[in-house]
Amino acid sequence: MKVAIIGIGLIGGSFARDIRKLYPAATLFGMDTNAENMQKAQRLNLVDQSTTYGDLAQMDMVIVSIPVDVLVRELTNILDAVGDETVVFDVGSTKALVCKAVEAHPKRRNFLACHPIAGTEFSGPEAAIENLYNGKTNIICEVEKTAFKLQERALQLFQEMGMRIRYMNAAAHDKHIAYVSHLSHISSFMLGKTVIEKEKNERDIFDMAGSGFESTVRLAKSSPAMWTPIFEQNKANVVETLEEYIQNLQAFKKMIEEDDFKGVYDEMDSTNRIKQILNGIPLTK
Amino acid sequence: MKVAIIGIGLIGGSFARDIRKLYPAATLFGMDTNAENMQKAQRLNLVDQSTTYGDLAQMDMVIVSIPVDVLVRELTNILDAVGDETVVFDVGSTKALVCKAVEAHPKRRNFLACHPIAGTEFSGPEAAIENLYNGKTNIICEVEKTAFKLQERALQLFQEMGMRIRYMNAAAHDKHIAYVSHLSHISSFMLGKTVIEKEKNERDIFDMAGSGFESTVRLAKSSPAMWTPIFEQNKANVVETLEEYIQNLQAFKKMIEEDDFKGVYDEMDSTNRIKQILNGIPLTK
Repeated sequence: MKVAIIGIGLIGGSFARDIRKLYPAATLFGMDTNAENMQKAQRLNLVDQSTTYGDLAQMDMVIVSIPVDVLVRELTNILDAVGDETVVFDVGSTKALVCKAVEAHPKRRNFLACHPIAGTEFSGPEAAIENLYNGKTNIICEVEKTAFKLQERALQLFQEMGMRIRYMNAAAHDKHIAYVSHLSHISSFMLGKTVIEKEKNERDIFDMAGSGFESTVRLAKSSPAMWTPIFEQNKANVVETLEEYIQNLQAFKKMIEEDDFKGVYDEMDSTNRIKQILNGIPLTK
Repeated sequence: MKVAIIGIGLIGGSFARDIRKLYPAATLFGMDTNAENMQKAQRLNLVDQSTTYGDLAQMDMVIVSIPVDVLVRELTNILDAVGDETVVFDVGSTKALVCKAVEAHPKRRNFLACHPIAGTEFSGPEAAIENLYNGKTNIICEVEKTAFKLQERALQLFQEMGMRIRYMNAAAHDKHIAYVSHLSHISSFMLGKTVIEKEKNERDIFDMAGSGFESTVRLAKSSPAMWTPIFEQNKANVVETLEEYIQNLQAFKKMIEEDDFKGVYDEMDSTNRIKQILNGIPLTK
């Protein structure tokens, strides 16, 4: 099997590691606009060699793991270049604009729109790890538009990697993911910002911060290059979640200001049921 | 050594576990208004027997690990009951009101105001674990008001438990801790609330939530009984942090609405330095 990975960072590189293990005979090709990352990926043995669009027609599988703004621009060029028997899938955190970008493409049947919900706050090829996707959910959109035999090849890989598959339409994906992923990132970034701004003397943060702060602010370490275009593409949903989040914070602040501590207690008590909701989420990063 | 632990949950119980290990000859006494928790604490061998205020005069050490509202009410009664050679320390997440409650007490010299920055999102005696405090910071306020020999007894325990000691005045403690701890809890609770409200169909949360959401929302599992009085006692600082947090969120939302994605990128990029700030925080829960 010949596999090309376009964008060889945390996400693409972690695919490479699993494919190496599951398909020892596969040849892995890499492409990255960052020459240094490309060299690292070869040094780390994530890929065997670099490739170009001219070679994509030979591939059995092309994984596109690049920021979603570049994805939306490049995906038609990638589909132009691949062969009739190549399956192409993306891993972007937004789905509506990606699906729209290729809806009229003659090779639409070669493309599978995916979002594996996995990652860490780190980035680059050296952040790639084995088994990142094991037990994680992979959301697939518009599956009916992909040729059955090509779907099958990708789905077999996902299954062997241990992913759970969920099918969803692209608009529903973007709406729900704004709540459970995009909002978490913004709340974490703004928490980090608020504390950094206040605590000019960083020793104070360092000495007083515990594992609770660390956990809540962890996502503020994430890559701005990856997240900025996600917020841009999912603007309407993200703004809506932010409005609701800000309203909830304002209501909570008002209760504190008005000494309504019964209300404060009740809010936290009813939110405690997040425990049960979270119980089934696989927690390995 | 005779040690009484008043309030035998996660925090008090974890002290009990370490004292058992470090002082095998110590006798541990427990007190809890919740009879079921008291029984659990004995069954789990956290304490040897229950005790009452009438016995506190015999103790070498009294650890007061109860919600801060009860603490502020009870601490004078506890000091009334202890002996001249007993050292009493609390573990409350606020310090100004606690210190104020005992400032004129004739046994003020028996009291050491402490805040070990450690915990998990769980509560109750069964949540108590060994080594919870190892490598964690313990903030001590108004140390000069505690008799030197009694300080020494408590500090030796803290040192043997592996805690790092920091001295701070109570007002500074309450101000800084609002940023690095209290605000994290509120941001997490309100994130949980926002998502739960929106996602009536919890399967959607469950299937799409990843480790990033789990990490950011973890503190929303915390005990409302513990946290409500903390927000009440630290009201002014908490409201101030919330105002700044909300302002930052509103500014971020405005940038998204106005398509200022350069600004969005820059905000995240400058907040990324939380990585370096967090690098030294001990992360074992």
